[in-house]
Amino acid sequence: MLPDACLLPERRRKSPPKDAVVTIEPLSTEFLREAIRLAVENVESGRGGPFGAVIVREGLIIARGTNQVTALRDPTAHAEVVAIRAACQVRHDFSLAGCEIYTSCEPCPLCLAAIYWAHLDRIHYAATCDQAAEAGFDDRVIYEELSKSKQERNLPMLQGLIAEAAAPFQAWRQSPNRIPY
Amino acid sequence: MLPDACLLPERRRKSPPKDAVVTIEPLSTEFLREAIRLAVENVESGRGGPFGAVIVREGLIIARGTNQVTALRDPTAHAEVVAIRAACQVRHDFSLAGCEIYTSCEPCPLCLAAIYWAHLDRIHYAATCDQAAEAGFDDRVIYEELSKSKQERNLPMLQGLIAEAAAPFQAWRQSPNRIPY
Repeated sequence: MLPDACLLPERRRKSPPKDAVVTIEPLSTEFLREAIRLAVENVESGRGGPFGAVIVREGLIIARGTNQVTALRDPTAHAEVVAIRAACQVRHDFSLAGCEIYTSCEPCPLCLAAIYWAHLDRIHYAATCDQAAEAGFDDRVIYEELSKSKQERNLPMLQGLIAEAAAPFQAWRQSPNRIPY
Repeated sequence: MLPDACLLPERRRKSPPKDAVVTIEPLSTEFLREAIRLAVENVESGRGGPFGAVIVREGLIIARGTNQVTALRDPTAHAEVVAIRAACQVRHDFSLAGCEIYTSCEPCPLCLAAIYWAHLDRIHYAATCDQAAEAGFDDRVIYEELSKSKQERNLPMLQGLIAEAAAPFQAWRQSPNRIPY
Protein backbone atom coordinates (compact mmCIF):
# COMPACT_ATOMS: atom_id res chain seq x y z
CA MET A 1 0.00 0.00 0.00
CA LEU A 2 1.50 3.31 -1.04
CA PRO A 3 0.73 6.59 0.73
CA ASP A 4 -1.33 9.41 -0.73
CA ALA A 5 0.85 11.49 -2.99
CA CYS A 6 0.68 14.96 -4.47
CA LEU A 7 -1.03 16.59 -1.51
CA LEU A 8 0.10 20.01 -0.46
CA PRO A 9 0.64 20.57 3.25
CA GLU A 10 -1.66 23.24 4.57
CA ARG A 11 0.18 26.46 5.21
CA ARG A 12 -0.68 27.78 8.62
CA ARG A 13 -1.97 31.28 8.18
CA LYS A 14 -2.05 33.61 11.14
CA SER A 15 -3.44 37.09 11.48
CA PRO A 16 -0.77 38.80 13.51
CA PRO A 17 -1.62 41.80 15.67
CA LYS A 18 -0.71 45.08 14.01
CA ASP A 19 2.91 46.12 14.52
CA ALA A 20 3.74 42.72 16.01
CA VAL A 21 7.01 41.00 15.10
CA VAL A 22 5.98 38.06 12.92
CA THR A 23 8.16 35.00 12.74
CA ILE A 24 7.42 33.21 9.50
CA GLU A 25 8.51 29.59 9.62
CA PRO A 26 10.25 28.46 6.47
CA LEU A 27 8.38 25.99 4.32
CA SER A 28 11.06 23.37 5.03
CA THR A 29 10.00 23.34 8.68
CA GLU A 30 6.46 22.50 7.65
CA PHE A 31 7.63 19.60 5.47
CA LEU A 32 9.65 18.23 8.37
CA ARG A 33 6.68 18.67 10.71
CA GLU A 34 4.55 16.71 8.21
CA ALA A 35 7.10 13.86 8.29
CA ILE A 36 6.92 13.81 12.12
CA ARG A 37 3.12 13.93 12.02
CA LEU A 38 3.05 10.93 9.66
CA ALA A 39 5.40 9.03 12.01
CA VAL A 40 3.19 9.63 15.07
CA GLU A 41 0.04 8.74 13.12
CA ASN A 42 1.70 5.55 11.85
CA VAL A 43 2.37 4.38 15.42
CA GLU A 44 -1.10 5.31 16.65
CA SER A 45 -2.74 3.39 13.80
CA GLY A 46 -0.59 0.34 14.57
CA ARG A 47 0.66 0.11 10.98
CA GLY A 48 4.37 0.12 11.76
CA GLY A 49 7.41 1.77 13.27
CA PRO A 50 7.72 5.44 14.35
CA PHE A 51 9.03 6.85 11.09
CA GLY A 52 7.62 9.14 8.38
CA ALA A 53 9.02 10.87 5.31
CA VAL A 54 7.94 13.16 2.48
CA ILE A 55 9.54 13.93 -0.90
CA VAL A 56 9.41 17.53 -2.05
CA ARG A 57 9.94 19.00 -5.50
CA GLU A 58 9.69 22.70 -6.28
CA GLY A 59 8.01 23.45 -2.96
CA LEU A 60 5.36 20.73 -3.24
CA ILE A 61 5.06 17.38 -1.49
CA ILE A 62 4.94 14.80 -4.28
CA ALA A 63 4.92 11.66 -2.08
CA ARG A 64 4.63 10.49 1.51
CA GLY A 65 5.89 7.35 3.21
CA THR A 66 5.63 5.66 6.58
CA ASN A 67 7.28 2.58 7.99
CA GLN A 68 5.28 -0.46 6.83
CA VAL A 69 7.69 -3.28 7.75
CA THR A 70 5.26 -5.24 9.90
CA ALA A 71 2.05 -4.30 8.05
CA LEU A 72 3.41 -5.33 4.63
CA ARG A 73 5.80 -7.98 5.98
CA ASP A 74 8.57 -6.24 4.06
CA PRO A 75 11.82 -5.51 5.92
CA THR A 76 12.70 -2.89 3.27
CA ALA A 77 9.46 -0.89 3.69
CA HIS A 78 11.09 1.88 5.70
CA ALA A 79 9.47 5.34 5.52
CA GLU A 80 12.12 6.81 3.21
CA VAL A 81 12.09 3.78 0.89
CA VAL A 82 8.27 3.82 0.72
CA ALA A 83 8.32 7.57 -0.03
CA ILE A 84 11.04 7.17 -2.69
CA ARG A 85 9.15 4.35 -4.43
CA ALA A 86 5.92 6.39 -4.39
CA ALA A 87 7.66 9.54 -5.68
CA CYS A 88 9.22 7.60 -8.56
CA GLN A 89 5.75 6.40 -9.60
CA VAL A 90 4.47 10.00 -9.47
CA ARG A 91 7.45 11.22 -11.51
CA HIS A 92 7.49 8.20 -13.87
CA ASP A 93 11.24 8.14 -13.34
CA PHE A 94 13.74 6.05 -11.38
CA SER A 95 15.70 9.22 -10.61
CA LEU A 96 14.56 11.85 -8.09
CA ALA A 97 17.26 14.37 -9.00
CA GLY A 98 15.85 17.81 -8.25
CA CYS A 99 13.88 16.52 -5.25
CA GLU A 100 14.61 16.64 -1.50
CA ILE A 101 13.57 14.27 1.28
CA TYR A 102 12.24 15.27 4.71
CA THR A 103 12.33 12.47 7.24
CA SER A 104 11.30 12.28 10.89
CA CYS A 105 14.62 10.59 11.75
CA GLU A 106 18.15 10.45 10.41
CA PRO A 107 18.14 7.72 7.74
CA CYS A 108 19.39 4.22 8.53
CA PRO A 109 21.97 2.75 6.10
CA LEU A 110 19.23 1.12 3.98
CA CYS A 111 17.44 4.44 3.55
CA LEU A 112 20.61 6.47 3.09
CA ALA A 113 21.81 4.11 0.35
CA ALA A 114 18.34 4.30 -1.27
CA ILE A 115 18.59 8.11 -1.15
CA TYR A 116 21.94 7.97 -2.98
CA TRP A 117 20.61 5.54 -5.61
CA ALA A 118 17.54 7.80 -6.10
CA HIS A 119 19.85 10.81 -6.64
CA LEU A 120 17.96 13.03 -4.19
CA ASP A 121 19.52 16.47 -3.74
CA ARG A 122 19.32 16.91 0.00
CA ILE A 123 18.20 15.29 3.28
CA HIS A 124 16.29 17.11 6.03
CA TYR A 125 15.84 15.15 9.26
CA ALA A 126 14.62 15.70 12.82
CA ALA A 127 15.60 12.92 15.27
CA THR A 128 19.08 11.40 15.33
CA CYS A 129 20.21 7.77 15.05
CA ASP A 130 20.95 7.94 18.80
CA GLN A 131 17.31 8.76 19.55
CA ALA A 132 16.20 5.89 17.30
CA ALA A 133 18.60 3.55 19.11
CA GLU A 134 17.15 4.53 22.50
CA ALA A 135 13.72 3.53 21.14
CA GLY A 136 15.04 0.12 20.08
CA PHE A 137 16.00 0.82 16.45
CA ASP A 138 19.73 0.44 16.58
CA ASP A 139 20.84 0.95 13.01
CA ARG A 140 24.25 2.12 14.26
CA VAL A 141 25.20 -1.57 14.37
CA ILE A 142 24.41 -1.83 10.65
CA TYR A 143 26.41 1.36 9.91
CA GLU A 144 29.37 -0.23 11.73
CA GLU A 145 28.98 -3.53 9.89
CA LEU A 146 28.85 -1.80 6.48
CA SER A 147 32.02 0.15 7.20
CA LYS A 148 33.96 -3.06 8.01
CA SER A 149 35.82 -5.18 5.49
CA LYS A 150 34.02 -8.31 4.31
CA GLN A 151 36.24 -10.53 6.45
CA GLU A 152 35.50 -8.56 9.64
CA ARG A 153 31.70 -8.54 9.41
CA ASN A 154 29.58 -10.63 11.75
CA LEU A 155 27.49 -11.79 8.79
CA PRO A 156 29.41 -14.49 6.87
CA MET A 157 30.10 -13.62 3.21
CA LEU A 158 31.30 -16.49 1.02
CA GLN A 159 32.54 -16.06 -2.55
CA GLY A 160 32.13 -18.76 -5.20
CA LEU A 161 32.00 -19.37 -8.96
CA ILE A 162 34.61 -16.68 -9.57
CA ALA A 163 35.28 -17.93 -13.12
CA GLU A 164 31.59 -17.53 -14.04
CA ALA A 165 31.00 -14.26 -12.17
CA ALA A 166 31.79 -11.93 -15.07
CA ALA A 167 29.12 -13.33 -17.42
CA PRO A 168 26.32 -10.87 -16.45
CA PHE A 169 28.66 -7.88 -16.91
CA GLN A 170 29.86 -9.19 -20.29
CA ALA A 171 26.21 -9.53 -21.35
CA TRP A 172 25.57 -5.97 -20.09
CA ARG A 173 28.45 -4.47 -22.08
CA GLN A 174 27.21 -6.18 -25.24
CA SER A 175 23.51 -5.39 -24.71
CA PRO A 176 21.87 -2.82 -27.00
CA ASN A 177 19.00 -2.50 -24.46
CA ARG A 178 20.98 -1.28 -21.47
CA ILE A 179 19.70 1.78 -19.60
CA PRO A 180 22.18 3.20 -17.04
CA TYR A 181 20.69 4.27 -13.69
CA MET B 1 6.37 -7.61 -10.82
CA LEU B 2 7.82 -10.21 -8.51
CA PRO B 3 9.80 -13.18 -9.78
CA ASP B 4 8.58 -16.76 -9.73
CA ALA B 5 9.12 -18.21 -6.31
CA CYS B 6 9.23 -21.66 -4.81
CA LEU B 7 10.81 -23.32 -7.81
CA LEU B 8 13.46 -25.91 -7.19
CA PRO B 9 16.59 -25.63 -9.29
CA GLU B 10 17.07 -28.73 -11.36
CA ARG B 11 19.84 -30.87 -10.00
CA ARG B 12 22.11 -31.86 -12.79
CA ARG B 13 22.29 -35.64 -12.74
CA LYS B 14 25.09 -37.35 -14.55
CA SER B 15 25.72 -40.99 -15.13
CA PRO B 16 29.45 -41.20 -14.59
CA PRO B 17 31.47 -43.93 -16.29
CA LYS B 18 32.19 -46.84 -13.97
CA ASP B 19 35.23 -46.35 -11.78
CA ALA B 20 35.53 -42.69 -12.86
CA VAL B 21 36.41 -40.04 -10.29
CA VAL B 22 33.19 -38.07 -9.80
CA THR B 23 33.31 -34.47 -8.62
CA ILE B 24 29.97 -33.63 -7.05
CA GLU B 25 29.36 -29.91 -6.93
CA PRO B 26 27.82 -28.73 -3.68
CA LEU B 27 24.24 -27.52 -3.86
CA SER B 28 25.41 -24.00 -2.92
CA THR B 29 27.28 -23.79 -6.24
CA GLU B 30 24.07 -24.51 -8.09
CA PHE B 31 22.20 -21.77 -6.21
CA LEU B 32 24.94 -19.30 -7.08
CA ARG B 33 24.89 -20.45 -10.69
CA GLU B 34 21.11 -19.86 -10.73
CA ALA B 35 21.67 -16.28 -9.49
CA ILE B 36 24.19 -15.70 -12.30
CA ARG B 37 21.82 -17.25 -14.85
CA LEU B 38 19.04 -14.89 -13.71
CA ALA B 39 21.40 -11.92 -14.04
CA VAL B 40 22.38 -12.80 -17.62
CA GLU B 41 18.75 -13.49 -18.57
CA ASN B 42 17.71 -10.13 -17.04
CA VAL B 43 20.15 -8.26 -19.28
CA GLU B 44 19.22 -10.22 -22.39
CA SER B 45 15.51 -9.53 -21.83
CA GLY B 46 16.23 -5.80 -21.37
CA ARG B 47 14.42 -5.69 -18.04
CA GLY B 48 17.25 -4.20 -15.99
CA GLY B 49 20.80 -4.33 -14.70
CA PRO B 50 23.11 -7.37 -14.65
CA PHE B 51 22.20 -8.71 -11.22
CA GLY B 52 20.30 -11.75 -9.94
CA ALA B 53 19.70 -13.31 -6.52
CA VAL B 54 17.92 -16.26 -4.91
CA ILE B 55 16.86 -16.90 -1.32
CA VAL B 56 17.32 -20.42 -0.01
CA ARG B 57 15.81 -22.13 3.01
CA GLU B 58 16.49 -25.72 3.99
CA GLY B 59 18.04 -26.50 0.62
CA LEU B 60 15.21 -25.05 -1.47
CA ILE B 61 14.97 -21.81 -3.45
CA ILE B 62 11.99 -19.95 -1.98
CA ALA B 63 12.32 -16.74 -4.04
CA ARG B 64 14.19 -15.21 -6.95
CA GLY B 65 14.98 -11.59 -7.77
CA THR B 66 16.53 -9.62 -10.60
CA ASN B 67 17.36 -5.95 -10.94
CA GLN B 68 14.19 -4.12 -12.01
CA VAL B 69 15.26 -0.49 -11.43
CA THR B 70 14.52 0.74 -14.93
CA ALA B 71 11.61 -1.62 -15.71
CA LEU B 72 9.69 -0.71 -12.53
CA ARG B 73 11.10 2.84 -12.24
CA ASP B 74 12.13 1.94 -8.69
CA PRO B 75 15.69 2.80 -7.63
CA THR B 76 15.38 0.31 -4.74
CA ALA B 77 14.43 -2.65 -6.96
CA HIS B 78 17.88 -4.26 -6.81
CA ALA B 79 18.04 -8.03 -7.24
CA GLU B 80 18.63 -8.77 -3.55
CA VAL B 81 15.86 -6.39 -2.42
CA VAL B 82 13.40 -7.88 -4.94
CA ALA B 83 14.32 -11.40 -3.78
CA ILE B 84 14.00 -10.45 -0.08
CA ARG B 85 10.60 -8.86 -0.62
CA ALA B 86 9.39 -11.92 -2.56
CA ALA B 87 10.75 -14.37 0.05
CA CYS B 88 8.99 -12.46 2.85
CA GLN B 89 5.69 -12.83 0.99
CA VAL B 90 6.31 -16.56 0.59
CA ARG B 91 7.21 -16.90 4.28
CA HIS B 92 4.47 -14.51 5.49
CA ASP B 93 7.13 -12.98 7.70
CA PHE B 94 9.24 -9.81 7.72
CA SER B 95 12.17 -11.86 9.03
CA LEU B 96 14.19 -14.28 6.90
CA ALA B 97 16.16 -15.72 9.80
CA GLY B 98 17.09 -19.27 8.85
CA CYS B 99 17.49 -18.34 5.17
CA GLU B 100 20.57 -17.58 3.06
CA ILE B 101 20.98 -15.36 0.00
CA TYR B 102 22.91 -16.23 -3.16
CA THR B 103 23.67 -13.23 -5.34
CA SER B 104 25.48 -12.85 -8.64
CA CYS B 105 27.50 -9.93 -7.23
CA GLU B 106 28.70 -8.70 -3.86
CA PRO B 107 25.82 -6.63 -2.44
CA CYS B 108 25.81 -2.84 -2.69
CA PRO B 109 25.18 -0.90 0.58
CA LEU B 110 21.41 -0.79 -0.08
CA CYS B 111 21.25 -4.56 -0.50
CA LEU B 112 23.66 -5.31 2.35
CA ALA B 113 21.61 -3.14 4.73
CA ALA B 114 18.42 -4.87 3.51
CA ILE B 115 20.09 -8.24 4.20
CA TYR B 116 20.84 -7.15 7.79
CA TRP B 117 17.28 -5.85 8.32
CA ALA B 118 15.90 -9.13 6.91
CA HIS B 119 18.08 -11.13 9.37
CA LEU B 120 19.42 -13.45 6.68
CA ASP B 121 21.98 -15.95 8.00
CA ARG B 122 24.61 -15.82 5.29
CA ILE B 123 25.60 -14.24 1.96
CA HIS B 124 27.01 -16.17 -1.00
CA TYR B 125 28.23 -14.05 -3.90
CA ALA B 126 30.14 -14.43 -7.16
CA ALA B 127 31.40 -11.13 -8.66
CA THR B 128 33.02 -8.43 -6.53
CA CYS B 129 32.19 -4.73 -6.14
CA ASP B 130 35.29 -4.02 -8.24
CA GLN B 131 33.87 -6.02 -11.14
CA ALA B 132 30.56 -4.16 -10.79
CA ALA B 133 32.42 -0.84 -10.79
CA GLU B 134 34.24 -1.74 -14.01
CA ALA B 135 30.81 -2.34 -15.59
CA GLY B 136 29.61 1.12 -14.47
CA PHE B 137 27.94 0.26 -11.15
CA ASP B 138 30.23 2.01 -8.71
CA ASP B 139 28.60 1.39 -5.35
CA ARG B 140 32.01 1.78 -3.68
CA VAL B 141 31.30 5.52 -3.69
CA ILE B 142 28.14 4.88 -1.65
CA TYR B 143 30.05 2.61 0.76
CA GLU B 144 32.53 5.44 1.27
CA GLU B 145 29.79 8.03 1.77
CA LEU B 146 28.00 5.86 4.35
CA SER B 147 31.17 5.37 6.36
CA LYS B 148 31.74 9.14 6.62
CA SER B 149 30.33 11.37 9.35
CA LYS B 150 27.23 13.38 8.43
CA GLN B 151 29.27 16.56 8.09
CA GLU B 152 31.77 15.00 5.66
CA ARG B 153 29.26 13.53 3.21
CA ASN B 154 28.81 15.03 -0.26
CA LEU B 155 25.04 14.85 0.18
CA PRO B 156 23.87 17.72 2.43
CA MET B 157 22.08 16.61 5.63
CA LEU B 158 20.24 19.32 7.54
CA GLN B 159 18.69 18.82 10.97
CA GLY B 160 15.60 20.70 12.13
CA LEU B 161 12.68 20.61 14.58
CA ILE B 162 14.88 19.03 17.25
CA ALA B 163 12.35 19.85 20.01
CA GLU B 164 9.59 17.96 18.16
CA ALA B 165 11.74 15.07 16.97
CA ALA B 166 11.08 12.76 19.93
CA ALA B 167 7.29 12.66 19.51
CA PRO B 168 7.15 9.53 17.28
CA PHE B 169 9.39 7.59 19.70
CA GLN B 170 7.30 8.68 22.69
CA ALA B 171 4.19 7.46 20.86
CA TRP B 172 6.00 4.18 20.09
CA ARG B 173 6.97 3.54 23.72
CA GLN B 174 3.38 4.13 24.82
CA SER B 175 1.76 2.12 22.01
CA PRO B 176 0.12 -1.21 22.90
CA ASN B 177 0.23 -2.14 19.18
CA ARG B 178 3.95 -2.04 18.64
CA ILE B 179 5.61 -5.02 16.93
CA PRO B 180 9.44 -4.97 17.10
CA TYR B 181 11.25 -5.98 13.89
